[in-house]
Amino acid sequence: MGKRLVIALGGNALGNTPKKQLELVKTTASTIVDLVEEGYDVVVGHGNGPQVGMVNLAFENSYNSTGATPEMPFPECGAMTQGYIGYHLQQSIGRELKKRGIRKSVVTVITQVEVDKNDPAFQNPTKPIGSFYTKEEAEKIAKETDYTFSEDAGRGYRRVVASPKPVSIIELETVERLVSDGCVVITVGGGGIPVIKTDDWYEGVAAVIDKDWASSKLALDLRADMLVILTAVEKVAVNFKKPNQQDLDEMSLEEARKYIQEGHFAKGSMLPKVESCIDYLEHMKDGKALITSLEKAKDALQGKTGTVIHV
Amino acid sequence: MGKRLVIALGGNALGNTPKKQLELVKTTASTIVDLVEEGYDVVVGHGNGPQVGMVNLAFENSYNSTGATPEMPFPECGAMTQGYIGYHLQQSIGRELKKRGIRKSVVTVITQVEVDKNDPAFQNPTKPIGSFYTKEEAEKIAKETDYTFSEDAGRGYRRVVASPKPVSIIELETVERLVSDGCVVITVGGGGIPVIKTDDWYEGVAAVIDKDWASSKLALDLRADMLVILTAVEKVAVNFKKPNQQDLDEMSLEEARKYIQEGHFAKGSMLPKVESCIDYLEHMKDGKALITSLEKAKDALQGKTGTVIHV
Repeated sequence: MGKRLVIALGGNALGNTPKKQLELVKTTASTIVDLVEEGYDVVVGHGNGPQVGMVNLAFENSYNSTGATPEMPFPECGAMTQGYIGYHLQQSIGRELKKRGIRKSVVTVITQVEVDKNDPAFQNPTKPIGSFYTKEEAEKIAKETDYTFSEDAGRGYRRVVASPKPVSIIELETVERLVSDGCVVITVGGGGIPVIKTDDWYEGVAAVIDKDWASSKLALDLRADMLVILTAVEKVAVNFKKPNQQDLDEMSLEEARKYIQEGHFAKGSMLPKVESCIDYLEHMKDGKALITSLEKAKDALQGKTGTVIHV
Repeated sequence: MGKRLVIALGGNALGNTPKKQLELVKTTASTIVDLVEEGYDVVVGHGNGPQVGMVNLAFENSYNSTGATPEMPFPECGAMTQGYIGYHLQQSIGRELKKRGIRKSVVTVITQVEVDKNDPAFQNPTKPIGSFYTKEEAEKIAKETDYTFSEDAGRGYRRVVASPKPVSIIELETVERLVSDGCVVITVGGGGIPVIKTDDWYEGVAAVIDKDWASSKLALDLRADMLVILTAVEKVAVNFKKPNQQDLDEMSLEEARKYIQEGHFAKGSMLPKVESCIDYLEHMKDGKALITSLEKAKDALQGKTGTVIHV
């Protein structure tokens, strides 16, 4: 069995429009195949923030302006982005593998991720999705539905959904099988389609699972040797964007926890990345977690840059 | 190795809205798990006509009314429907398997299907997609793009795309692997995301691959023992809807060809189903092809109804 690596792609690895995305994923594919060439069995998790926003908004706009298409529930919008992003990634990775003469299959697995309906996040939804509404419109919709609205930075009211933690990956067994067989697997897209347990199985729920947390859970469940979180910066920093900013080559779990307590990492940005690395390492003592940029991933894997988090 | 069965689901197995679809796929899932219980390794192909029309239209409407979301190319719309329909199917099949105490994984594989860019269908696009336009609007868009428009039954002009034949299934190896491992696999959704060969790999093309043809190709490539095409009627008929209508229990390849020549099967309806069964059987002499309704699938498999096509 080869060494397993779970990579979490950030928004900058994809694009806001299909044309832009098809262009951007070329670089992404190149990085991923670099890691394959380094000898890793690579499993790809990715975000879908801008994309699921776009799909959700298109259906809202179409429904509101023409009524010709139905309202599209949020989990279904997520499933659509898994298909759409997965298609682009698998085509680009396939092209790159062929170019380098590597014989490997690439597969996108539509993936549901269980969340706990009692997760405290459901009491305090924070992730804005969809269009802006006036206060009156928002109150009217809230009355007719179970939607929650929140004022968004003076620009109006937007629907907010919860961001609960991943509990289990429904299609894990299939992913495990495909990785073992040597496939490059694309999974937990957008953090996974969020589902909650019901009496007889699972059902979709409007929520956004953080893709770093979903990838960390995936790395843990697959007993992956490495978790690589790609983002916009080459290294994690303390005192970020201050005169005394200090880029980190590495940090221990203890240091990471201390930096979090000191408030060095921004919520919704670096914080979930560091936290999900900590969670992975706490349960996988011989694992290795790495945070770096898409462009520097190969160098970082060779120990030349990036921030390594270790036990 | 168990007996392999490829099932092609028609539009009536799914639904026009997400709510309706989630309801309808319960029956579909029940039929599919019936076939699993009969001892078959089941691979599921499905159409996406209404669904891809809906996604395409939502993006068109949103782009035209607000400009807030980008135009979405047709292959990407197809990829979205694979995610959306696959999610519903795999959730419902998973529930049904659990109910019956069957331990099996269900997986949706995002699937590209190669078509030949020299397929004569590209010279004569016939499949209408998207909104209706006036003659003037259609001519304007046609000038600005490479779109072809066609007058649609007196209701205005609509974009038409080609319906080429499937040449190869890009993700075949993965599907083969998953079927061999005992998974219920959902693939070639909507006939597959149509791609054409380029110098360095494949790229998406605006086209609609008939799902019966894609499923027949899949059955052939997987050396499936059976191809089951589900549709709205229990049996294939000659003189359909005439006083002398005759439902068929079975027909030989020779009879099937004769009936086609006599014009018994409607284009875009029963014709591609019978033709794709013929194609499968011509290349797989010991295979068995069956056309019946979703509701009667189990009975038909036990030889009680449906139309069997044989060499």
